[in-house]
Amino acid sequence: MTSPTSEQLLAAHPRASTDPDDRARASVDRSGFIPQSFADGVVFAQDIDDVVLTMKLASEHGVKIVPRGAGTGLAAGSCAQAGEVVLDLSAMNQILSLDPVQGIAVVQPGVINAAVNHAAGEHGLFYAPDPASTAICSIGGNIATNAGGMWCAKYGVTRESVLSLLVVLPDGQLLRTGRRTIKGVAGYDMNALMIGSEGTLGIVVEATLRLRPKPKHTATLVSYFPDEAAAASAASAVIAAGLTPSVLELMDGKTLSAVDSALGTDHHSRGGALLLAQTDGYGAHLEMQALQDAIEPLAAHSELAQDPQHAEALVEARRQAIPSMEKLGTVSICDIGVPRNRLAEAIAGLQRIEAERGVSIFIIAHAADGNLHPIIVVPEGQSITTGSPKAALADMFYLAKELGGTLTGEHGIGLLKQDWLPEEVGETSLQLQRRLRAVFDPQGILNPGKAI
Amino acid sequence: MTSPTSEQLLAAHPRASTDPDDRARASVDRSGFIPQSFADGVVFAQDIDDVVLTMKLASEHGVKIVPRGAGTGLAAGSCAQAGEVVLDLSAMNQILSLDPVQGIAVVQPGVINAAVNHAAGEHGLFYAPDPASTAICSIGGNIATNAGGMWCAKYGVTRESVLSLLVVLPDGQLLRTGRRTIKGVAGYDMNALMIGSEGTLGIVVEATLRLRPKPKHTATLVSYFPDEAAAASAASAVIAAGLTPSVLELMDGKTLSAVDSALGTDHHSRGGALLLAQTDGYGAHLEMQALQDAIEPLAAHSELAQDPQHAEALVEARRQAIPSMEKLGTVSICDIGVPRNRLAEAIAGLQRIEAERGVSIFIIAHAADGNLHPIIVVPEGQSITTGSPKAALADMFYLAKELGGTLTGEHGIGLLKQDWLPEEVGETSLQLQRRLRAVFDPQGILNPGKAI
Repeated sequence: MTSPTSEQLLAAHPRASTDPDDRARASVDRSGFIPQSFADGVVFAQDIDDVVLTMKLASEHGVKIVPRGAGTGLAAGSCAQAGEVVLDLSAMNQILSLDPVQGIAVVQPGVINAAVNHAAGEHGLFYAPDPASTAICSIGGNIATNAGGMWCAKYGVTRESVLSLLVVLPDGQLLRTGRRTIKGVAGYDMNALMIGSEGTLGIVVEATLRLRPKPKHTATLVSYFPDEAAAASAASAVIAAGLTPSVLELMDGKTLSAVDSALGTDHHSRGGALLLAQTDGYGAHLEMQALQDAIEPLAAHSELAQDPQHAEALVEARRQAIPSMEKLGTVSICDIGVPRNRLAEAIAGLQRIEAERGVSIFIIAHAADGNLHPIIVVPEGQSITTGSPKAALADMFYLAKELGGTLTGEHGIGLLKQDWLPEEVGETSLQLQRRLRAVFDPQGILNPGKAI
Repeated sequence: MTSPTSEQLLAAHPRASTDPDDRARASVDRSGFIPQSFADGVVFAQDIDDVVLTMKLASEHGVKIVPRGAGTGLAAGSCAQAGEVVLDLSAMNQILSLDPVQGIAVVQPGVINAAVNHAAGEHGLFYAPDPASTAICSIGGNIATNAGGMWCAKYGVTRESVLSLLVVLPDGQLLRTGRRTIKGVAGYDMNALMIGSEGTLGIVVEATLRLRPKPKHTATLVSYFPDEAAAASAASAVIAAGLTPSVLELMDGKTLSAVDSALGTDHHSRGGALLLAQTDGYGAHLEMQALQDAIEPLAAHSELAQDPQHAEALVEARRQAIPSMEKLGTVSICDIGVPRNRLAEAIAGLQRIEAERGVSIFIIAHAADGNLHPIIVVPEGQSITTGSPKAALADMFYLAKELGGTLTGEHGIGLLKQDWLPEEVGETSLQLQRRLRAVFDPQGILNPGKAI
């Protein structure tokens, strides 16, 4: 049942679709969340004017708008339902300019993360935030969730690589945040406020990204450990030794098996858990030597990449971890963060939750940041957002909290993690945040029910 | 004339002073701004309860509060006048805890920046934001302005090194922002919103800082160039070569003369402008070699530090630049930012302004960030915030704007730069920012007239 207000918007916008397939596709993301109903329609924006028109119509008629990029979100932040219209930005996918001297790219929100890196690479530059979904996720979604990835261990998350945004506000006005310079403190940090706001404050229609010079050298190591506890201790040893790896990824035994099944590799035969480490820069090889020294006492077996192809193959195993699990059933990718020296405790806690709740949990982690992705997998067709999986998700939050950590390191709150947000940020903060939201969106029409 | 509402607060607070010397001292900072009158009184906070009581009394009676740390601000952000009460946090200067394993320090706002680095250094760690005023500026002030410094070329500004804050809101409530983990995206980025807000949204009473491992090696180079244009071109060549120096500071010929006079050195005899460069990490020496190669064609003479003492002496010349100028008269340290490849144009523009306005302008710059400090010096006793100096300040803003830059890279807007803020951020943004401010401070009692 399409709402009458949605109908007015959809009738008035030349890019609107009410095709049932479009509506079904636009109502889900990759979180495993299954909405009870589908969105009333979809606007396929081709340019800024389409977005402005959408928001003008939406604010005029009081229509709820769910912005959407590539739809690869993991917290149901872009899921939609009846009474809502999806604003699909995936066709706004151009790199508008790339200035190699300034190290700046100006892009549309629908551009795929990997495409930015491909274009930057031609000039010896790279874009640091690299979610595992780099090949399929969009920059707009990365900005909405302040996405991280493997390289942010050294180079920071999306916030540290987005200089400026052009945003369409809920009433259709245009807002510019940030600036093209590296530093700047004129006025409040509206840019940081927008980044990670999960499409609730405005719609990003253009982003000015900071590119960095590609490291001169990179060294890549894979080490196998008897078990997850040893791998976590090794990760802590790397941090304690004062090293700054550009990548430090942990994969548990179950994940190694999943990857082996999917890719035909034999990682699990070499150890019960794995650490993938990279160092980069002029001292990459010296720093890698120090890293090897730090983890040596704990490792069962290590393999240093001998050439870039070998290194790429090792990294690829990590990138394929989640796709490999998706072959085993429906996945819910959780995202807790803990202080970096408490990784081993977090893993032990997750294994306890797995046993107690009788759910299957695979663990990968951005170990240098203390950001863990416990991945719940249920057989295809079973619900992953209710029952035992949901109870396990709650347990994970309380585990993170107990260890001084957070509910979400880089995926966002979306719909899935609403229940625990007040407990994490506190009532005073949440009330303030709701009032900030109302400053941008007094009618409450932008991505309602999501984020805060 | 003390306002009756201030009197009520000052009478009720056990830490209040109305001593004329206290009031005079607390009404000025290091910007050169001379207030027409002095604050009604000063509260010398010893602990959080003192701050909470101040804000409860202030909101009850409608008293305007000016928070103050070490008073080293350069934009008149902590200057105060009649009708206002200064809340002095300088006695809250303890490092509450330092966890070397997590790489975290919890500090009070009045702690001096260099004291944090001293304490961190004992554990092989450092705190990256290092304003030139490190020996005298407080962490609370650094947070209020999102301060930078020399090392932020590689390690980012204050925002990238402050994980969490405890804040007293204008109504006396306590707010916690951020978290102890490296990453986290639960809710809006209230931490970033607070950082750089110049004491207008709340009063920081505790900060959780991220410490980083001290670099394994550091290489330090001083290069002399025929003139400023050549030095700026060399800085651009360093960036274009894809290098990531941890320090890249430019000093013009006038500054070299001032330093030579003050320290008895002979920098100016070796060249008309200077670049100070550091590289660090495992590849420090290799990267320095590449840096030397990049600037070689432009440099008249270079000196590579042979040991840490030598390096420290070279860095000290830069740290003493501003104190050296202060011996010549009253200084106003401006703070424009430009895209990094436009440094030479910025310097040429500043030299033009100097000639046209007949004011003396010294130039130092964080060259890797495109952040310039043109420093106006007038004879002692002359006004630096009116007449030609003010006209020159306006010219500098328009120069920065023309080059795609900003009014302030790291000092803030304070009182001094109010005139140009609307033009930089735009009316839409400014209106939104004022409404955000009102969410925190509906009565408008926190640092009124400053920042936005």
